[in-house]
Amino acid sequence: MGFEWVGDEVMAKGVAERRFDLTRATRCVPGLLWRPAEPAEPAHPAPLVLLGHGGSSHKRQDYIVAMARRLVRHHGIAAAAIDGPVHGYRRHDTNADDPVGADFARLWNDDPTMTDEMVADWRATLDALQAPTALGPGPVGWWGLSMGTILGLPLIAAEPRISVAVLGLWGLTGPTRERLAQDAASVRCPVLFLTQWDDELCPRDRAFELFSALGSQDKRLHASPGGHVEVPLEEFRASERFLAASLGASTDR
Amino acid sequence: MGFEWVGDEVMAKGVAERRFDLTRATRCVPGLLWRPAEPAEPAHPAPLVLLGHGGSSHKRQDYIVAMARRLVRHHGIAAAAIDGPVHGYRRHDTNADDPVGADFARLWNDDPTMTDEMVADWRATLDALQAPTALGPGPVGWWGLSMGTILGLPLIAAEPRISVAVLGLWGLTGPTRERLAQDAASVRCPVLFLTQWDDELCPRDRAFELFSALGSQDKRLHASPGGHVEVPLEEFRASERFLAASLGASTDR
Repeated sequence: MGFEWVGDEVMAKGVAERRFDLTRATRCVPGLLWRPAEPAEPAHPAPLVLLGHGGSSHKRQDYIVAMARRLVRHHGIAAAAIDGPVHGYRRHDTNADDPVGADFARLWNDDPTMTDEMVADWRATLDALQAPTALGPGPVGWWGLSMGTILGLPLIAAEPRISVAVLGLWGLTGPTRERLAQDAASVRCPVLFLTQWDDELCPRDRAFELFSALGSQDKRLHASPGGHVEVPLEEFRASERFLAASLGASTDR
Repeated sequence: MGFEWVGDEVMAKGVAERRFDLTRATRCVPGLLWRPAEPAEPAHPAPLVLLGHGGSSHKRQDYIVAMARRLVRHHGIAAAAIDGPVHGYRRHDTNADDPVGADFARLWNDDPTMTDEMVADWRATLDALQAPTALGPGPVGWWGLSMGTILGLPLIAAEPRISVAVLGLWGLTGPTRERLAQDAASVRCPVLFLTQWDDELCPRDRAFELFSALGSQDKRLHASPGGHVEVPLEEFRASERFLAASLGASTDR
């Protein structure tokens, strides 16, 4: 495994953002780290939230950057994102004319290793970011909706370092629904689960089944009117508060 | 209509609590008002939240007092509660051996005027509390779960002064389900709707139907694991924040 920073750290309003490339066997996984401009004391490493972007999106989508910056600024929590399979910089140039969603759907249907490979990408990213030369081993949370739940829930089930998660906009449906049901049952960390009442990509009853299947005692579901991409700002704020409270960060700086 | 204070105001940690009796025709409606020890400027009357207690409970149940005191202390919001039909001081002595719940169920089934009478009790209470000699005409919210929704939702539908509401722990079920469906459709104010995933008194699908039926564009549902009386502290806190933000009160004093 290799890890290297790409380019310089960019500072904006107290937030340091830096690109990195992780290499795992023959894969290159491009990522971003956001952290407080003032590094934490080595004895108290900053908490870290891993941000899983949605389908047809990428590691630097507006809502990912906004979540990352608010976590850093308001709560002193670092954040990281990597591109998902066939998304962002991991898109094959030869497929440039196809919609990303169609490429992902094909992979999701045809490649049974996709979930495990993405879980391994995230775990290797976490190893690298928790090294003493990066953030150090602080507490870790997950935030990911839709594809960020399809690929994030298996990560949470596999990764004991993740102690809190925000999930949602998906349910027990799609090619990996059985895997999701199994992984959900083994989750034990506190979960905030977000759903959209009129979600056209995942009917709410399927989302409710996934919420029910979660093994966590400490879980809650928030539902808002509207479609798949209409998650209100209020639930991004609720995500922040929930992650910050659970990761022991300041709830409002 | 008559209104009179009963006994002296009692002060505790910045909260003034006082009993009142409202008389409407031949009914006596006993109530409580909690308000900041420091009265508001007449030009800016304190917001007021009406608290509807649950079945078998009463106007001074622990969770009602706790909500009232936190609203006053943390947000500068006054709060009021009155005893529901056959509850608290409105219990008939002759029924002392029967459980309150059985009395209420009988009334709910047999007396089609019950809801309208309770709505009229609350509206008369609000008139009295918004008089210049009491709080004055500030913004008004509602908080009431279970019986507090069975009787509160019709109040919200009837009362334009109520501009925000927390409801929940009930659904489209029970003797007044058709009335509730009609009233829900005419609600327009922002609503936070609380449900318990394993509610043994109201199946969650019936609660989801009531949430769906609410005419408000601005609504959200929070679901927590556990039974009817296991609403977690987190949702009382979410109620507070929601009411305070909507009533323009300070979000944290």
